[in-house]
Amino acid sequence: MKQGYRLACRAKILGDIVIDVPVESQIHDQVIRKSATQLSSDFSNGAVSAVRLLTIQVEEPTLDCPTGDLERLQKSIEQESNLNDLSIEPSVLIQLQKILRKANWHVTVAIYEQSKIIAIWPGEQLSVYGLAVDIGSTTVVGHLCDLQTGKVLATHGFMNPQIRFGEDLMSRVSYSMMNPGGAQQMTDAVRQGICLMIDELLKQTQVDRDKLLEAIFVCNPVMHHLFLGIDPVELGVSPFALATQSAIALPSVNLNLNLADGAQIYLPPCIAAHVGADAAAVVLAEAPYKQDKITLIIDIGTNAEIILGNKDKLVAASSPTGPAFEGAQIEHGQRAAPGAIERVRIDAETLEPKFKIIGVEGWSTEEEFNLAVKKTPITGICGSGIIEVIASLYLAGVIKSDGLIDGEKAKSSSRIIKNGKTWAYQLVDDQYGDNSSVLITQNDVRAIQLAKATLYASIKLLMTKLNITKVERIRFAGAFGSHIDPLYAMLLGMIPDCPLDDVQSIGNAAGTGARIALSCTKARREIEVEVLALEKIETATEANFQEYFVNAMAIPHKIDEFENLSQNVQLPTQSSEDSITLSPGTRRRRSLQRRNSR
Amino acid sequence: MKQGYRLACRAKILGDIVIDVPVESQIHDQVIRKSATQLSSDFSNGAVSAVRLLTIQVEEPTLDCPTGDLERLQKSIEQESNLNDLSIEPSVLIQLQKILRKANWHVTVAIYEQSKIIAIWPGEQLSVYGLAVDIGSTTVVGHLCDLQTGKVLATHGFMNPQIRFGEDLMSRVSYSMMNPGGAQQMTDAVRQGICLMIDELLKQTQVDRDKLLEAIFVCNPVMHHLFLGIDPVELGVSPFALATQSAIALPSVNLNLNLADGAQIYLPPCIAAHVGADAAAVVLAEAPYKQDKITLIIDIGTNAEIILGNKDKLVAASSPTGPAFEGAQIEHGQRAAPGAIERVRIDAETLEPKFKIIGVEGWSTEEEFNLAVKKTPITGICGSGIIEVIASLYLAGVIKSDGLIDGEKAKSSSRIIKNGKTWAYQLVDDQYGDNSSVLITQNDVRAIQLAKATLYASIKLLMTKLNITKVERIRFAGAFGSHIDPLYAMLLGMIPDCPLDDVQSIGNAAGTGARIALSCTKARREIEVEVLALEKIETATEANFQEYFVNAMAIPHKIDEFENLSQNVQLPTQSSEDSITLSPGTRRRRSLQRRNSR
Repeated sequence: MKQGYRLACRAKILGDIVIDVPVESQIHDQVIRKSATQLSSDFSNGAVSAVRLLTIQVEEPTLDCPTGDLERLQKSIEQESNLNDLSIEPSVLIQLQKILRKANWHVTVAIYEQSKIIAIWPGEQLSVYGLAVDIGSTTVVGHLCDLQTGKVLATHGFMNPQIRFGEDLMSRVSYSMMNPGGAQQMTDAVRQGICLMIDELLKQTQVDRDKLLEAIFVCNPVMHHLFLGIDPVELGVSPFALATQSAIALPSVNLNLNLADGAQIYLPPCIAAHVGADAAAVVLAEAPYKQDKITLIIDIGTNAEIILGNKDKLVAASSPTGPAFEGAQIEHGQRAAPGAIERVRIDAETLEPKFKIIGVEGWSTEEEFNLAVKKTPITGICGSGIIEVIASLYLAGVIKSDGLIDGEKAKSSSRIIKNGKTWAYQLVDDQYGDNSSVLITQNDVRAIQLAKATLYASIKLLMTKLNITKVERIRFAGAFGSHIDPLYAMLLGMIPDCPLDDVQSIGNAAGTGARIALSCTKARREIEVEVLALEKIETATEANFQEYFVNAMAIPHKIDEFENLSQNVQLPTQSSEDSITLSPGTRRRRSLQRRNSR
Repeated sequence: MKQGYRLACRAKILGDIVIDVPVESQIHDQVIRKSATQLSSDFSNGAVSAVRLLTIQVEEPTLDCPTGDLERLQKSIEQESNLNDLSIEPSVLIQLQKILRKANWHVTVAIYEQSKIIAIWPGEQLSVYGLAVDIGSTTVVGHLCDLQTGKVLATHGFMNPQIRFGEDLMSRVSYSMMNPGGAQQMTDAVRQGICLMIDELLKQTQVDRDKLLEAIFVCNPVMHHLFLGIDPVELGVSPFALATQSAIALPSVNLNLNLADGAQIYLPPCIAAHVGADAAAVVLAEAPYKQDKITLIIDIGTNAEIILGNKDKLVAASSPTGPAFEGAQIEHGQRAAPGAIERVRIDAETLEPKFKIIGVEGWSTEEEFNLAVKKTPITGICGSGIIEVIASLYLAGVIKSDGLIDGEKAKSSSRIIKNGKTWAYQLVDDQYGDNSSVLITQNDVRAIQLAKATLYASIKLLMTKLNITKVERIRFAGAFGSHIDPLYAMLLGMIPDCPLDDVQSIGNAAGTGARIALSCTKARREIEVEVLALEKIETATEANFQEYFVNAMAIPHKIDEFENLSQNVQLPTQSSEDSITLSPGTRRRRSLQRRNSR
């Protein structure tokens, strides 16, 4: 039995314990919604990897020419490539003599950043591999890529094992503050997880470990510090100083990772104390610094990272939205996992809902759903579901602009029920089983209002900094962003008005940025420069923030503020209705209803 | 009980075993004859250590200036010293935040080679320390030095624990060839020994481990490879290729040494496959490349390393003298240890000897000796003793120029006894106890003849390479070299004729070179350049070697060859005898007799 493993049937609990149910014993996989997208051609064309392969014939030693093997190897490399003064990883030096002789002096070397020999193999070798890893607070996802082509050969994700020490970032920082050695425990946990992931990826792809020569890690600052073995305690207290914000390059041996012996690690720079190397990777993936149009990039988690600007200037901030968007602090909220409601439509007349749950294909109104839900019981509602249910209730007039659930509606619908002193909407009742009831309470609406107001106020602050009144493009990055409907987000007032066809989800852009950095050293230099140029805004110290925040509490938001902007909302043009002049709120509501009814 | 330790009284031997008696259980300490000598003023004046200390005030972070701690530290360093683009050891980065805050932002940093931050402490720190280590096949000696002053604070030596795998270099190479994983065992053994030594030196000096920032290691190529974790197998087979001959600099964490976390390691370059970084350190200590006079440096071990030349040119070779000079292959030979005869004088008339043993102060003819020898019994004869006894027997006419022990002398002295078909000299009889008998046999004389002929022929070869017929200075390096009497060595024909007052022992010059490299980066660059310029001679492939070897078998050596050279022998001028014209042999013999009678 592996270290730390116990058989539940043989173990007796004698005190407080923390149990991890290993992935292989879980009936339902956690949904790790991070897949690899195509790299933009900017980087995939003409990308030069940090690792260069060179196949050479090395001169044999003779009694009369007693130079060292390394020196003859270096001479051959210089003749072939003009690279000189190369250093060598100690772990490669110790293998050198055996491999040169085994190969009859015909070898391939891997040279890192034109300065260091990091691997050697007998004969000709054409392929080497790298790893692009996004260490999220909840999930860690790694892509094993061909370093020459940038192609993703396999992707593997796992739940961040640090979860046992705290669900979210701040509770992990607290864990470190409260427990001596706690930071080290979390460091060990995530590194061990990554080592297992590497094993799995190598198994899947049949790639030899000694060909896995590089790994890029992107992560938020707390994950960044814990991964590097730095106690993140300073990130939990003002003024939130990072240990370092610069890009980090170091041999993998320093982090006890099980890549090739001579493998190298790179982490892009952090932007600020709450805007990490993952946000830098998003910037790299989206390259707003090359755009003419004012671009807003939002990555929503417990904090939302916000990047705004264009080729002239970029500003960035972290918005402390809290975990409501992730389903926490919501009565029946939960993380995105099988059984969670992720899509909701509500009939504006009858207030009857239809919904979809993760792990089941169709809508709840379809016949197969009743069967499927027996295998995948409804367990709660996740972020995207909450946003859609609240927006739908607003569309249906159940929730007013101030966020109050209208008790009057209880007269015409049994879905609106009394819940203590306030009202609630019964999204799911017990028809699917004893525990399937999902209620949307007044508190839930308040939590989402607070979160969205925080996000919106932060964005407004950045817009003020740039002295702009509108954004031209919006990109949602991250797992959450790739599952919310931009229209609902705009309706709810999470984001400023913007032409709808330029509001897109970009999926796991941090992972994409990591892959770009992996396959292109030029991109690394680029992001290092761009992050330095980028202006960081600390929302907490900005005088206007509170005012913006209060104004943003309304749903969708304080309408009058957006009268001008909303003229630019370009609705889908499938219907002749578009030509009719509507108030912005109505236009958006109609458009949503049209989409719901499809 | 520590790992690997057993109580002899509780252990049952069930098969072949290797037992190490730990030093603390040994009644007699091994004599580790390596002490620190004064550094030449060339390097001690104006030496600039690789580690620079800088005490600085670092700007505190604020909410409005959210730069990383490292970046603010770098900024302060740059303002104070103009050093920029400094990297940082990962192990230092992870301590950074705690120390900066504990110190109220007033810290001292250690900067290595003007490029890397390798330590940080709160407040002002004025002293840091380094280690200069000579890893010999038999003994390992380390000097803990103040890096600013170069001063040696403590010295500690221990038996190289690799001895359990093989007494000499080649048997260790064989062990590696015959035993998979054998090289790793030897690597682990010596590194563990060094870690214990470091513990001991820190204890002795009360220096904090986090102040021990550098270590220089000098060693022969086999020790060099094993220390670095490189299998030395190629050093045992032609063409004896080194893995690398260049100087090596790497963080100590790569070698699992217990210095400060961010400490750095440096090994000077190796000169050739059998002329290691220890020989390079000797060259650094003696700096023959700065001499006008033709200088011969010899370091005698199982191999003798020979450096010859002056500021115009240096040549180097390794001479496979075998272990006879170290007491192996000698009937009653042994390593230098308490109880070993190390000095011998023989009365030319009576053939009665007087001698000294290691661990006892006076000569055997003194009264106290009989008492002392009860506590330190005579156990054999070591290298310096063998040379003196054979030279003395030659002076007394017992051994002829061809090396034969003259049986005729048995008629006048009971010291000359029959030993099988040949004769032997009874140096010690049973008067000091049952096992105290020490015999010098014909085979012993032959073994020494072979060894000295090899050494002499190698020197001759280098002289031929330089097209010279005389040397002007001779320096004996190493433990053995510091205990032989130059006059006896010259008489025996180990070394070419040379003005006697310019034949000196320089003690542990390799250790001295290591200390120079430790305290002076300029010296490191100097030796790296000098070693590249130095011409390496492989004696085995030189056509003349065999001829020189045969000619050098005679004692002292083929006289006629040296008739001219010997004119230059400058005898000590205490006596009027010096003005009398003597044949070179007689002159030398007289001089020795004079010295003996003092």
